[in-house]
Amino acid sequence: MSIKDKRVLIAGGDGYLGWALTVYLRSKGIECFGIDNFSRRSHVNTIGSDSLVPIGPQARVTGTDVLHRVNLESAFRHADPDVIVHFAEQPSAPFSMKSSVHAVSTQHNNLAGTMNILWTMRDVCPEAHLIKLGTMGEYSDWIYDKTPIPEHHTMSVMRMDPHITENHFMEIPTPRAAGSFYHWSKIFDSNNIEFACKIWGLRATDINQGVVYGSRIEAMDENNRTRFDYDSYFGTVVNRFIVQSIIDTPLTVYGKGGQTRGYLNINDVMRAIELVMENPPNPGQFEIVNHRTEVFCVSEIATMVSEVTGCDVMSLENPRIEKEEHFYNPEYRKLKEWGLKDPKLMKDVLPDMVEDLRQFKDKVRLDVIGPDSFWRKEKEGVTLGT
Amino acid sequence: MSIKDKRVLIAGGDGYLGWALTVYLRSKGIECFGIDNFSRRSHVNTIGSDSLVPIGPQARVTGTDVLHRVNLESAFRHADPDVIVHFAEQPSAPFSMKSSVHAVSTQHNNLAGTMNILWTMRDVCPEAHLIKLGTMGEYSDWIYDKTPIPEHHTMSVMRMDPHITENHFMEIPTPRAAGSFYHWSKIFDSNNIEFACKIWGLRATDINQGVVYGSRIEAMDENNRTRFDYDSYFGTVVNRFIVQSIIDTPLTVYGKGGQTRGYLNINDVMRAIELVMENPPNPGQFEIVNHRTEVFCVSEIATMVSEVTGCDVMSLENPRIEKEEHFYNPEYRKLKEWGLKDPKLMKDVLPDMVEDLRQFKDKVRLDVIGPDSFWRKEKEGVTLGT
Repeated sequence: MSIKDKRVLIAGGDGYLGWALTVYLRSKGIECFGIDNFSRRSHVNTIGSDSLVPIGPQARVTGTDVLHRVNLESAFRHADPDVIVHFAEQPSAPFSMKSSVHAVSTQHNNLAGTMNILWTMRDVCPEAHLIKLGTMGEYSDWIYDKTPIPEHHTMSVMRMDPHITENHFMEIPTPRAAGSFYHWSKIFDSNNIEFACKIWGLRATDINQGVVYGSRIEAMDENNRTRFDYDSYFGTVVNRFIVQSIIDTPLTVYGKGGQTRGYLNINDVMRAIELVMENPPNPGQFEIVNHRTEVFCVSEIATMVSEVTGCDVMSLENPRIEKEEHFYNPEYRKLKEWGLKDPKLMKDVLPDMVEDLRQFKDKVRLDVIGPDSFWRKEKEGVTLGT
Repeated sequence: MSIKDKRVLIAGGDGYLGWALTVYLRSKGIECFGIDNFSRRSHVNTIGSDSLVPIGPQARVTGTDVLHRVNLESAFRHADPDVIVHFAEQPSAPFSMKSSVHAVSTQHNNLAGTMNILWTMRDVCPEAHLIKLGTMGEYSDWIYDKTPIPEHHTMSVMRMDPHITENHFMEIPTPRAAGSFYHWSKIFDSNNIEFACKIWGLRATDINQGVVYGSRIEAMDENNRTRFDYDSYFGTVVNRFIVQSIIDTPLTVYGKGGQTRGYLNINDVMRAIELVMENPPNPGQFEIVNHRTEVFCVSEIATMVSEVTGCDVMSLENPRIEKEEHFYNPEYRKLKEWGLKDPKLMKDVLPDMVEDLRQFKDKVRLDVIGPDSFWRKEKEGVTLGT
């Protein structure tokens, strides 16, 4: 089946990437059915912020919550999807570390939503292809401090325990560990999905992304833009630096700024998902795909943004517990083999991003840029009772 | 601090092991504070069954739910515990595989309860020792098909991917995988606990048990007995075989009966927890302890019970997706080093168990012995809408 003929259900279709994908696929004539519970809008409003870019009303997608199995099944039966793209997750590490309520709600939302999607696929469309957006944050530098992050679901290893004297070869799930309760939820999701593929014969691709940046995709005009968050919970580092620039405040680097990650532009996320749709795994298979265009440490990004905008860079004490300098080298082959080429480079995109966002300068709220969530209890301003 | 002076909070104190531990520790003069939400009573009643052994009223423990963070914190402040023993989990694999509602509620109950305990420890008693009851089912025979299940949280391995040409040594979290959404929830719990130890300096011991059997502990009289389940959801295999025997029905072996597991008597669970209390890990440390006395395959147990009771053995189609013959060899050193000795052996215990339970013969309900939950959709009698 050509991807032009595929029917696509997008869970989390009101979000930053979910809405962008809806616009992108529709611009190619592909039928998209978006559902969302609008929790991103409410979470961002609750912390006193809002999308910097004005976005359309909730009515642009259907108000179905993946946590509600009966409604989800109705949406699946209506959409009759060949592909489900699953963005319907709470995506913020600082949010998940704020309190027990935030930690529990993050893991419940993400695990229960994914679990409901899996059971609904089993019952309604067992042949469909689940595309789940993952994160390279599933591969902690606590583990991958000397060896590349793999791009497979299993790994061959030889056990080296001192008391194991023979050669014990093992085929194991790719080792994973995380640095926040949010990132752990993504690992747990991956495990549940892999198990569902194994027992029910479902097929799924997990796209482990680096950090996505960008204020728009090329198919967007002023009437169908996607949200843009810059607060300390939902704004990723590049987006935050650009907003700090347009209001002429220093770019805030946490700790030494040596935290190294993969980065990719939102336009390339769209193309990657299209390629994954064109390359579905076999029934029962759980495929892992990594996606990164460039690798930077945070201080390099600050320097790059500073060169465009002239802003100062300052260091803040790191609110997280993480290595501030480390090895980082994710394998990245499959999307290139499938034809992803000429990706956007950060240095080429930054000037346009700054220009695009400067028009919203007066909407920026300085007090939400944070940080406001701390991995160590003693760093908190108050004791969090719940 | 001598364990005689320790204050113990038992989460899930109304359950099979939780109540037994309460009776055991009190018989030694140790102060115990039990909490429970009584979900085991209600789950078992909902499927039309009941504890075969009559048990005391709910008032024997405090009705606090680990899912309710504020109430949990009150209980912690009241109990002021040095040790928290955490049994407050939904422990049934077939329950977790029955429908999406069961899968979601199992993972939510287990993850959120453990998460709330971790945050409450952080805020109320960061020096306390968390003892969490785990399961050897966290180490799937899909992984441990040639090498022993380890008794450590991390493992040294050499990466052998075909495209990795140098020697890449890795220190990884002990590889785990599970065969049901319940068993996955236990893995996820272990991960959350290990992460909390790392970032907050908590200390925890995870006791990965084999299958526990037995109808009572030695410290019990007729007025303080613990529950005994034999239904297809909450009754483990030995307990079920004995109940099938006392009502003169055949013992039902699933598939080939070669499923091999570690087994241990409930009296030895008590002694093991006492030893773990005497050997707390250091702050920040997450200790793994395995516990099994004997290793049997299911058909061996059926034969052993049949020799005592004269009952027939019959094979049923396996409701699960699992290997029916496989390697199985969990490492088991720490409890023995700490002094666990003279464990009870199944062949010695079976005759007394049969005699003990025969008095309740008229209460047995044949229709709950099942199986009633199927890993493959096509095996189900009805489509589970939710």
